[in-house]
Amino acid sequence: MARDNDDLDLDADRLREECGVFGIFGHSEAAAITTLGLHALQHRGQEACGIVTFDGARYNSERRLGLVGDTFSRREVIERLPGSQAIGHTRYSTTGGTILRNVQPLFAELEGGGFAVAHNGNLTNGLTLRRELIARGSIFQATSDSEVILHLVARSTREKFIDRFIDALFQIEGAYAFVGLTNHMLVGARDPLGIRPLVLGELDGCYILASETCALDIIGARFVRDIENGEVVVITKDGVESLKPFPRVPPRPCIFEYIYFARPDSIVHGRSVYAVRKSFGAQLAAEAGIEADVVVPVPDSGVPAAIGYAQAAGLPYELGIIRNHYVGRTFIQPTQAIREMGVRMKHSANRSVIEGKRVVLIDDSIVRGTTSVKIVRMMRDAGAKEVHFRISSPPITHPDYYGIDTPDRENLLAARMDLEAMRAYMGADSLAFLSVDGVYKACGYDQRDPVRPQFTDHCFTGDYPTFLTDVVGEGAKQQFSLLAEAS
Amino acid sequence: MARDNDDLDLDADRLREECGVFGIFGHSEAAAITTLGLHALQHRGQEACGIVTFDGARYNSERRLGLVGDTFSRREVIERLPGSQAIGHTRYSTTGGTILRNVQPLFAELEGGGFAVAHNGNLTNGLTLRRELIARGSIFQATSDSEVILHLVARSTREKFIDRFIDALFQIEGAYAFVGLTNHMLVGARDPLGIRPLVLGELDGCYILASETCALDIIGARFVRDIENGEVVVITKDGVESLKPFPRVPPRPCIFEYIYFARPDSIVHGRSVYAVRKSFGAQLAAEAGIEADVVVPVPDSGVPAAIGYAQAAGLPYELGIIRNHYVGRTFIQPTQAIREMGVRMKHSANRSVIEGKRVVLIDDSIVRGTTSVKIVRMMRDAGAKEVHFRISSPPITHPDYYGIDTPDRENLLAARMDLEAMRAYMGADSLAFLSVDGVYKACGYDQRDPVRPQFTDHCFTGDYPTFLTDVVGEGAKQQFSLLAEAS
Amino acid sequence: MARDNDDLDLDADRLREECGVFGIFGHSEAAAITTLGLHALQHRGQEACGIVTFDGARYNSERRLGLVGDTFSRREVIERLPGSQAIGHTRYSTTGGTILRNVQPLFAELEGGGFAVAHNGNLTNGLTLRRELIARGSIFQATSDSEVILHLVARSTREKFIDRFIDALFQIEGAYAFVGLTNHMLVGARDPLGIRPLVLGELDGCYILASETCALDIIGARFVRDIENGEVVVITKDGVESLKPFPRVPPRPCIFEYIYFARPDSIVHGRSVYAVRKSFGAQLAAEAGIEADVVVPVPDSGVPAAIGYAQAAGLPYELGIIRNHYVGRTFIQPTQAIREMGVRMKHSANRSVIEGKRVVLIDDSIVRGTTSVKIVRMMRDAGAKEVHFRISSPPITHPDYYGIDTPDRENLLAARMDLEAMRAYMGADSLAFLSVDGVYKACGYDQRDPVRPQFTDHCFTGDYPTFLTDVVGEGAKQQFSLLAEAS
Amino acid sequence: MARDNDDLDLDADRLREECGVFGIFGHSEAAAITTLGLHALQHRGQEACGIVTFDGARYNSERRLGLVGDTFSRREVIERLPGSQAIGHTRYSTTGGTILRNVQPLFAELEGGGFAVAHNGNLTNGLTLRRELIARGSIFQATSDSEVILHLVARSTREKFIDRFIDALFQIEGAYAFVGLTNHMLVGARDPLGIRPLVLGELDGCYILASETCALDIIGARFVRDIENGEVVVITKDGVESLKPFPRVPPRPCIFEYIYFARPDSIVHGRSVYAVRKSFGAQLAAEAGIEADVVVPVPDSGVPAAIGYAQAAGLPYELGIIRNHYVGRTFIQPTQAIREMGVRMKHSANRSVIEGKRVVLIDDSIVRGTTSVKIVRMMRDAGAKEVHFRISSPPITHPDYYGIDTPDRENLLAARMDLEAMRAYMGADSLAFLSVDGVYKACGYDQRDPVRPQFTDHCFTGDYPTFLTDVVGEGAKQQFSLLAEAS
Repeated sequence: MARDNDDLDLDADRLREECGVFGIFGHSEAAAITTLGLHALQHRGQEACGIVTFDGARYNSERRLGLVGDTFSRREVIERLPGSQAIGHTRYSTTGGTILRNVQPLFAELEGGGFAVAHNGNLTNGLTLRRELIARGSIFQATSDSEVILHLVARSTREKFIDRFIDALFQIEGAYAFVGLTNHMLVGARDPLGIRPLVLGELDGCYILASETCALDIIGARFVRDIENGEVVVITKDGVESLKPFPRVPPRPCIFEYIYFARPDSIVHGRSVYAVRKSFGAQLAAEAGIEADVVVPVPDSGVPAAIGYAQAAGLPYELGIIRNHYVGRTFIQPTQAIREMGVRMKHSANRSVIEGKRVVLIDDSIVRGTTSVKIVRMMRDAGAKEVHFRISSPPITHPDYYGIDTPDRENLLAARMDLEAMRAYMGADSLAFLSVDGVYKACGYDQRDPVRPQFTDHCFTGDYPTFLTDVVGEGAKQQFSLLAEAS
Repeated sequence: MARDNDDLDLDADRLREECGVFGIFGHSEAAAITTLGLHALQHRGQEACGIVTFDGARYNSERRLGLVGDTFSRREVIERLPGSQAIGHTRYSTTGGTILRNVQPLFAELEGGGFAVAHNGNLTNGLTLRRELIARGSIFQATSDSEVILHLVARSTREKFIDRFIDALFQIEGAYAFVGLTNHMLVGARDPLGIRPLVLGELDGCYILASETCALDIIGARFVRDIENGEVVVITKDGVESLKPFPRVPPRPCIFEYIYFARPDSIVHGRSVYAVRKSFGAQLAAEAGIEADVVVPVPDSGVPAAIGYAQAAGLPYELGIIRNHYVGRTFIQPTQAIREMGVRMKHSANRSVIEGKRVVLIDDSIVRGTTSVKIVRMMRDAGAKEVHFRISSPPITHPDYYGIDTPDRENLLAARMDLEAMRAYMGADSLAFLSVDGVYKACGYDQRDPVRPQFTDHCFTGDYPTFLTDVVGEGAKQQFSLLAEAS
Repeated sequence: MARDNDDLDLDADRLREECGVFGIFGHSEAAAITTLGLHALQHRGQEACGIVTFDGARYNSERRLGLVGDTFSRREVIERLPGSQAIGHTRYSTTGGTILRNVQPLFAELEGGGFAVAHNGNLTNGLTLRRELIARGSIFQATSDSEVILHLVARSTREKFIDRFIDALFQIEGAYAFVGLTNHMLVGARDPLGIRPLVLGELDGCYILASETCALDIIGARFVRDIENGEVVVITKDGVESLKPFPRVPPRPCIFEYIYFARPDSIVHGRSVYAVRKSFGAQLAAEAGIEADVVVPVPDSGVPAAIGYAQAAGLPYELGIIRNHYVGRTFIQPTQAIREMGVRMKHSANRSVIEGKRVVLIDDSIVRGTTSVKIVRMMRDAGAKEVHFRISSPPITHPDYYGIDTPDRENLLAARMDLEAMRAYMGADSLAFLSVDGVYKACGYDQRDPVRPQFTDHCFTGDYPTFLTDVVGEGAKQQFSLLAEAS
Repeated sequence: MARDNDDLDLDADRLREECGVFGIFGHSEAAAITTLGLHALQHRGQEACGIVTFDGARYNSERRLGLVGDTFSRREVIERLPGSQAIGHTRYSTTGGTILRNVQPLFAELEGGGFAVAHNGNLTNGLTLRRELIARGSIFQATSDSEVILHLVARSTREKFIDRFIDALFQIEGAYAFVGLTNHMLVGARDPLGIRPLVLGELDGCYILASETCALDIIGARFVRDIENGEVVVITKDGVESLKPFPRVPPRPCIFEYIYFARPDSIVHGRSVYAVRKSFGAQLAAEAGIEADVVVPVPDSGVPAAIGYAQAAGLPYELGIIRNHYVGRTFIQPTQAIREMGVRMKHSANRSVIEGKRVVLIDDSIVRGTTSVKIVRMMRDAGAKEVHFRISSPPITHPDYYGIDTPDRENLLAARMDLEAMRAYMGADSLAFLSVDGVYKACGYDQRDPVRPQFTDHCFTGDYPTFLTDVVGEGAKQQFSLLAEAS
C-alpha cells in the first residue's frame, strides 16, 4: 500500500486519501502515543503530519512535511510536546501545494481558550463557507477546506464550546471525521452518513479516537466501539459523553475503505479488512474464473484478493512480481533509454514462475489504467503464455468529493472505455471486474439496496450521498487562495 | 554594527531594533530590487526576512528565518516571486519565539482582494486590540502585535481599501512605519509623531518606500523625500497620492536612529548619520575632554564618534581593538577556562597602540554595562596607563515601547547607578556621557525644547510621547499566545 | 528483505552481507546504468555506495553514505560522472565505523594510470598483509580490508597491469568478487572457490559485470554466463578475455545466497533463487510437516519458503503478519511502555487469520533468536491456538569470515542451545529446522558431499573452505586503525 | 581582511594565502584550545579546517569544509576529539578543487605509530617528488603538495621518527611551516629561509606552536619566541628541544605577512604588524604626498596605512566607504541591471564625506586592479572632486610559488601596464605606490640589501629565494590528480 510520487511506479495509479486522525485524553505519554498512532495510520497520508498537545497551560504544536517517522521519532520533538491531551493528523493533500500552513491539526485561540482540530474527509460546501466568512472579516491562514470549522466555531454566538462546535457542524456538508482538543476536552465527530471512519479505544483508562483499529493495536489499546454516523463524542476527565445532534439515518460508510484504504489488519465496522479483500477475490473467482496455471498479485495491494482468488479457484498463488523496497526519490533520467529502464526500479518480473504459464493477474482497482498496461507487458516480457487480468472491485466511473483524490472523469479509464476497449488497451487476454452486487455479497449482503445503499459507492454508481454545493454552485472551480507560498 | 547573539561579544550590550521595511511599485525586477533593499536594511533586523509580491493574479510570498542573503540570493527563490509590485521586511523579534508565522510581510485575503503588510515599530495598544478582536471571533495566526492591523482592516465596514486602512490606523497607538500591498496599490504610513523613519524614492520611474536612504543607494534610486509624520501615501500606476488623515503635530523622530540604528551612510531627516555621529563625538570632546595619548573606538559602532572626538581634541585616532570578522555561532565552551578565552574570539586588544598609553575609549551607548567592564579590562590587560571611557549619548534610564528591544528598567545600568558608581563598576579612570542638550546641539538645535521636544528621547528622559495602553492596562503582561510552535 | 537498524525490528536478527558490485565498459550512459544496477543490488548493502567512471582523461568519483537513490538519483551527480566506463559498489560495513573514506570503489593513481576497484567479500589475511605493507612504507587511507589490493598492485614489480593484479590476487586469501577499472580495461575476478557471486552480462554490445542477474534485468541486459571460480576476466574494446591463473578446483559458492542474500528474481548458478526457496519450504514440509490450519510467513524473507511449504502440505497460505512499509528511523522512546509499543511499528498480527488457529510460522533462518521470541508472542497475543515454528535452513552454529556479518559464536542461538532448549526459549509448540542434507536435496543434489562439499556451508557445519590467517594469527583481533574520524 | 568569493567584492582582488597552523602538547583542553587558536588564524584560510588529537591510544580527526566556527563550535565535535595533544590547520586552497581529502591535518599510520601533520606554505618540488613516489608504489589520497611529506617519512629507512622527519625535510624545497603530531611528540619546522612564520608559545606550562601571535593572545598564552628559519623543534613531556639540521643562512621572511596576511594585532619577527602598516602609510605620505581634503581607506585592509598616512600628512581620516557586514553568499542576479546594483551589496560610498572633496584613497596592494576601477568610480559617483589613489606596497609584477595564491603573470596589473597606464585604467587623478626601498625603510632598514635581501620579496622584484623545480622542470604544469571527486 506504499504510495510514492514516482510515475513509473505500479503504485502511480492508486487512489489517494486525505488523512488519518488520532486523539488521546489524559495519558502521561500523550505525544509519544499519538506518534505511534499516526505511524500506524501513515498509509492514509504521507505528505505531512502534525501533533498538538495541551499541557494545562499552553498548546504545543509540531507540524511538518514528510512522514511521521521523519519528525516525531526525535526525542527533542516529543519533548517539545508536553501535556496529557494530544491530537494528531497525517495528511495527503488533494489540491493546492503541500505547504506548511495547511498541515493539521489547525489551531485557533478562542475567547475562552484554545481549540485544535484535525479533519479526515472533505467538505462539499467548504469554498462557499470560506467566501462568506471572508466577506464578514475572517482571515484564513491555510488553503484547505478544513479551516472553515475553526472560523465557524470562533464566530458562533453560543456560549459553551460544545454548542459552538455543533453549531458549526450544522453549517458544513460532506464527509468528516474530526478530532478536536480544547482546554477541557477531547471531542470527536463523524458526518451524518459516517462516510469516513472513526473508532473509540481505551488504554490505561484513557480514551482514544482514531481513524482505524490498527492505530489502537500498535499501542496495545482496547477497541471499544465505532463512533456512529452523526455522533459527537465529548471526552473529559469524567469519561465519554455521546451526543447525537443530527436526525438519525442509516450509516453509509465509504466502500473504498474495504477495497483499498484501510490497513488489512484493521477491523472496519465489525469486518476484518483482510477477510473482506479475500472475499472480494473469492467472489471474483466465482464471477469470472478462468483456466490458468498461476495466480499472481500486483504487489502489495492485490495480495489479499489474490490469495482469496487462488484458494477459491484451487490454483497456485505465486510471487510473480518482486517489489524492490529500496526506493527513495525518483531517478532523474538523463535519456529516454535510461527512463525506460527505470520502470523496473520498483518492480521486476519473477521469470521463473511466469515463463510459459497462463497467469491470472489480480489487482484491487483500476483508475487511469496507465500502469496496468506496463504490468501486462512485464508479464508478456517474462514469457507468460496468457495474461488474464482480474480486478477485485467494479469499474471506477465517477470522481469522489469526500476526501479521495480521484482524477477528473475524463481520466478515469472506465469512464472512457467499455470492457473490451479496456482489455485491448491493456493488452490482456481477458479482463474482468468484480460486479457492484458482488462487492455487497462479499460484505455479507444479498445485494446493493438501491433505495438505501449500505455503502457510499458513487465512484462505481454515480450515486452521491450528499449535496455537492461547491461543485454545482459558484464554488465549482478548484479551491484556491490569492497567496502562493512555498513553505 | 553587527549584532550577534554571542553574549561574550562586545556587541552583546547593544540595543536592537525590530525591523526594516521596503516596497516598490511597478518594476519588472521588483523581487530582486526588494532583496537588495532589504540587504541594505539588514542592520535593522537579522532574525528573519520576507518578501511578498503581487503579479496581477496572485500574491507570492517567501518568509524565512535568517539573513536576507541566506534565502533571497538563490535564483529559484526570486523566480518564485514574480510580479512588479513587492514589499519586504527584515526583522529582529523582541518578544516571543522567533517563529516562521511571525515573519512579515503578513498577508490576508480580504473580500476585494489581498493585503500584505510589513511593519517597523511597536503598537502600544496591540494586546488590548488583539483581545477585543478574538472576542469578536477573529483568529490570529501570529504572536506579534502587527497582525492586528490585518484584522482591523478586514473588519472595517468602510467600502474602499484606503478608507479601511485609515480606519484601522485610527484605532492603533504607538510607533509604526507601514508598507502595504493590495491588488491595486502600494501604501505607506508613518505614525502621527513619525517615530520610526520612512522615505520615498524613485527608480526608473517607479516609486519606492524604504526605512532608510541606504536602501535607495544600493539600487541607485533617487531619494525623493521623507514620508512625513502622520502621512499616508498611496502609490498606484497614476503616481503618489499623499493623505494626511491625522491632526497635524510637529514630528518627533526617535533619536536612536542617529545614535545607533541607522546606517552611517544614510541621510535621516536631512542629516548625514555619519556626520551627526561625528558631531556627537566632537560635542563630547567639548563637554568632557581629557588629557590623553590616543582615542580608541569600540568597534564598529564607536568609530564615527571616535573620529569626531579625535579631530576635535587633536588626538591620534588608533585601532586599539581589532575585530575578528570570522564569527559564526557561539563556541560551546567545555570549561570555564575555555569560556574565558572565548571573550577574545570577536575582539582583541592591539597592544602596540595601547601599552603605556592614556586611552580615551569611545562607545555610542551603554545599556547593561556588562561588556563595558570587559573592554576596560581588555585595555588594562594590554598595558593602558589610563582608561577614560566616553559615551557619545546620554545615560539610558528608561525602557522603550516603540520597537527597540531594551531590557527591563532594573537591568539598565544608568537606572541603577549614578555616574561614579558606573565608573567604579567599569573600572575606568574616568567616565562621561554626552549630555541631553549636547545631543540636541550636535543635531543643530540650541537645546532640547522641554515643551515640544524635537525628538522621541524617553530612554534618556522618561518623557514618553504616546499613551502606553498595554503597559498601564490589563495588557501589562508580555504579549503571548496559547500556542507554542517551534517552526 | 529490508534490513534496518531498528533492534525492535523482526529484521533485526538477519545476517547481513557486505556488498554488491557492478561494472560496465564502453556505454555512453555508463554512470546512469551503474546507478540502476546498484539500485537492483541495494539489498546487498545499504550503508554506503559509490561509483567511479573513467572518461578517457580523468576518473570521476562519487562516494556517499546512504542508499543509491539518495545520491545518484540527482541529475547533477550523474553529470559529475562522465565517461563510458564505470564501476560501482553498494556496501554494508561489518566492522569499524561507517566512514566516507571506507566507501568503495577505492582508487589509486599508479605509475601507468589510475586503478579503481570494488570488492564484495572479505579477505582472511587482510590484516596480516596490511601490517606488512605499512612496515614497508605504504600509507593506508581506509580501515577496510579491501585497500590492501590497491597497495599490492601498486607495489608489484610486474610490468603490465593485469600481471600486477594477478600478482596481488595470489597474495590474498578469502572470498572476493572484484570489479576494477583502469585506463584501458574493466577487470573482474572471483576467488578460487567462487564463494561470492559474479555474473557477466551484455547490453547494446557492451559487457557488464554484476553480483546478481537482477542487476542485468533492471537495465534489460542479457545474461551471458557466471564468472567461474578462480577466473579473471579482462574486458576491453576488443571484447572479453578469460584468464584462469589459479589451479582448477570445483566451485564452492556460499549457500547463503540461496537462503537469504540474493534477490528472489535472481538466477544464481543456473537456479532460480525463488524456486530454490520454495523447494526449501517443500523439503521442510516433507521433513517436518505437522497438522495445522494456516501457513504464515515471517515477512518478507519467509514468503517463498512459506508458499512452498503451503503448497507441499496442502495448507492455506495466509498473511498473518502485516508489514508497515512506512518506517524511517528508530523511534526514540521516552519510556519503557512506549518502547514496548514500538515493537509493533514495523509488523502487526493480522488477528483475523490467527485467532483460534494452529499456525505454522515459516522463517528462513535464525541467528540470535531475539526476534523469534517476539514473533511467537505476537502470534499468541493474536489468539493462535498452536504455534509451530519451521525454519527453512539448518541451525547456524559457526560465524562467517567471508563477508557475512555474523555475531560472535556465543551469540548464535544454535551454538548455545539444543533444539528443545531453543523451542522452549521461543515459546513455540514445536520447532524444526531444515536438515543440512535437505538443503542439498532442495538444490538438486542427493546429499552433501562430505569430501568436496558443493557449497560453502561452514555456518552450519564448521567446515571452513580456506585458511583463516588473521583469525588464527596475530591478526586475530578486530581490524583497526589508529585514526578515528567521523566523516 | 575578510576574503569572500564574491567577484563584485572589493575584496575580490586580494592575495590569498594557503594556511594557518596550530599545535599544543599536554593540555587537558587541547582540542578546544586548538579551536580557539585556529579561529584567531581564520584570516589565513577560510575554505576548510581540521584538528587531529592524540589521546594516548588513538588519533581523533575532524576535517571539514568551511570556517572553524561552523564545525568546531559544537560540543559533540570537541567531544570527539579527546586527548591532550592536538594540531590544527585552517586552509585556503590555491589549486584543485576544495575537497575533503585535501583538508589537513593529514594523517598516516607508520610502523611505529601515527603521524599527523599540518602545513603552511608550498613545496616547489612537490610534484616532482609525488611522481617519484608513485613510481615506487606509494598511493596518494589527496591532490595537495603537502602529502609528500607523509610518504617521505613513511619511506625513510631511518629508525627514529625525528630522523625520518628530518630525512624528509632534506628532500623538499620551498616554503613551509609544519606542525606534526606523533605518539610521543609535537614537532614544528620552518624552512631554511623562514619564509612562512611560526611562533612558540606557552600556556599553563604547555608548549604551543602557531602561525601568528594572535593565536597565542586569544588563549592568553605567553609568547616565547619565533621558531627560527631552518629550525626543527621537538616538544615532549620533557620540554622543547631545538634542532638545526640545515646550514645556517640569514632569515628571509615573506614581506606579505606585513603587507597583508598577518593580523594587525600580531607581532611578527618582533614588529607590530599594525605599526608596520602605519609606517607604510607614513612612508607613502613622505614619498607621494599630495594636496587633499580627506584620507579614505579601502576597508578593511587599507585602514592602518590610511591612519598612518593621515597622521603623517596632517589630513583628516574619514570613513568614506562603508562596509556592510551582512553578506553571505553571492546574489544570483537575474539581469545585468540587478547585477550592477549588486556591486553595492558589500560597500557603499559615504557621500557626506566624499562630495566635493579631494580624496586620497589608500589600499594595501593591487593585484588584478579590477576592483580598483570600481572603487574609483564609486568615489566619483559620490561627488569626489579629485581621487588620488595611493598603494601602501610596491607594484606586484611576479607570481608567488610559496603559498600565496597569485594570478598568472599576465593577469597582474603591474606586469601588464606602466604607472600612467594603470592610473588611466583606474580613472584616478593620480596614482602612486610605495617604493621597494620604502618598504624596507618602514621596517627599519636603510634600504633593501641587494645581495642578501632581508625579506622574500620576489612578487615586487622577481628575485625568487629558492629553486623552482616544478616550475622549470617537467612539473611545470599545475599539480593534478587523475581523480575528480566532489567531496
